Amino acid sequence: MSILVIGSVAFDSIETPFGKVDEVLGGSATYFSTAASFFTDVNLVAVVGEDFPDEHRQMLVDRGIDLAGLKTAPGKTFRWKGRYGFDLNEAHTLDTQLNVFETFKPEIPVRYKDSEYVFLANIDPELQLDVLNQVEKPKLIACDTMNFWIEGKRDALLNTLKHVDVLVINEGEVRQLAEEPNLRKAAQVILSMGPKSLVVKRGEYGVIMFSEHSIFATPAYPLEEVFDPTGAGDTFAGGFIGYLASTRNLTEANIRKAVVFGSVMASFTVESFSLDRLKQLDYDEIKARFKEMKLLSDFEPIV
Amino acid sequence: MSILVIGSVAFDSIETPFGKVDEVLGGSATYFSTAASFFTDVNLVAVVGEDFPDEHRQMLVDRGIDLAGLKTAPGKTFRWKGRYGFDLNEAHTLDTQLNVFETFKPEIPVRYKDSEYVFLANIDPELQLDVLNQVEKPKLIACDTMNFWIEGKRDALLNTLKHVDVLVINEGEVRQLAEEPNLRKAAQVILSMGPKSLVVKRGEYGVIMFSEHSIFATPAYPLEEVFDPTGAGDTFAGGFIGYLASTRNLTEANIRKAVVFGSVMASFTVESFSLDRLKQLDYDEIKARFKEMKLLSDFEPIV
Repeated sequence: MSILVIGSVAFDSIETPFGKVDEVLGGSATYFSTAASFFTDVNLVAVVGEDFPDEHRQMLVDRGIDLAGLKTAPGKTFRWKGRYGFDLNEAHTLDTQLNVFETFKPEIPVRYKDSEYVFLANIDPELQLDVLNQVEKPKLIACDTMNFWIEGKRDALLNTLKHVDVLVINEGEVRQLAEEPNLRKAAQVILSMGPKSLVVKRGEYGVIMFSEHSIFATPAYPLEEVFDPTGAGDTFAGGFIGYLASTRNLTEANIRKAVVFGSVMASFTVESFSLDRLKQLDYDEIKARFKEMKLLSDFEPIV
Repeated sequence: MSILVIGSVAFDSIETPFGKVDEVLGGSATYFSTAASFFTDVNLVAVVGEDFPDEHRQMLVDRGIDLAGLKTAPGKTFRWKGRYGFDLNEAHTLDTQLNVFETFKPEIPVRYKDSEYVFLANIDPELQLDVLNQVEKPKLIACDTMNFWIEGKRDALLNTLKHVDVLVINEGEVRQLAEEPNLRKAAQVILSMGPKSLVVKRGEYGVIMFSEHSIFATPAYPLEEVFDPTGAGDTFAGGFIGYLASTRNLTEANIRKAVVFGSVMASFTVESFSLDRLKQLDYDEIKARFKEMKLLSDFEPIV
């Protein structure tokens, strides 16, 4: 039931109205795999530079994450610098240094090739497809992307999407990819591109998932303190795919529960900078917040 | 179980990306009472000018709305002109003509005075308080307001809020009234001002309700066509208070159902200009959409 994730491992420098950190551990594959590791085994594929410290590597290993696919390349680790205002829904990128990521060609270790669940984090859609060509038929392929690829590599992205079961992107990206302002219509356009499900991340408003015959919406857990939204989307995906992989059950009912587990994991991540909150989390807290999510959105049916 | 509503009856001129209408029937009390009339009896208090046609009056009467409190004053009916872009969450006001509303002093007809449910639509908080002084102790008082009064008549508004059970406002207004960017903390501030519940309207993202010991969130019904959002908030309030009044049950479980009925009513209103969709609506359609809302947000609990 292991998951293969390909994405970034990075150093983030972040400023929010509540604080500031320099060069803390970040990256899509880092957030994803840490979140997923609460549910199942994770095989990570990414690249870091020679400056990546053993301490971070050890943290991931301690969470049971397989780092056979974490390559160390000559040069420096990927760096991202961003700022958030009081509207925590929007990140303002101040600086991006691709460094070792610039020439990254993913190589999937032999023992990863039969991973049953695959998550293609937000990287060049050509690399995403390259990964799919290296793995045996997985049970489920999920994928993220961003405005940069939708604009700049649309054809490659559409090609990758033909092989994807679940696309996990934010609301603006849905409208941009579908070229349609109405979300429900845009979802239909995207489902015709290949994915069987579209999971739309709406930040503090939660998640809405479109499949051929159903729509599921869940609010976000309303937090008293949103400290830093960085990594929320990848953490969501980690909880979502992690729960699906751990239960090996792709029924609609189970996918809905997985969406809620993803939302729960994201709600913890944003309580601190970097992976600080996830590092201190235990499964009982996850279960307790899932139950709070049920109370939050539950109402009686009518006859 | 009748409801008293005080608010505006207006002519709206509206432009959206999907069409344009001139001087159609609008106003907060109109939307509210039409929506509520699907559930219970409504007593309307408002003012119109001599230009207000019998046809509109007849439509309201046909829905069982009592117009004893609809005063006709010398002059012209209140007019609002607005425009929406593709972001239908935000109205751009082009013109407001208060006309007869400028000198409006609400007089509550004797047979309205024992109304058990009161909705104070978005008008001057001094007039809202004036209405409360004219009615016998109602079972529930709900209230709307807007940025204009939060800025310009804060003290009067805070005075009115002391008497209000449920405040129904949008998200930006919550943050502005509480002077606190975090919604959950802002809700606590507002609950300390008097209201026992705060219902936060979030447009296409649905509704979140805060009470002393519970939070309830529901997504909006995802529509393929949002034609004109005008009146959505007042229609929500009409369905919400209408259902509560018709069931005479103020338990948490019933209030949650009322929020969903309010959301359902709002989802119909935005499908057409003016009250066009509500005029053609029947109760079976309301029930069917309530059931769709249940399917939309339902997920299994964990043990």
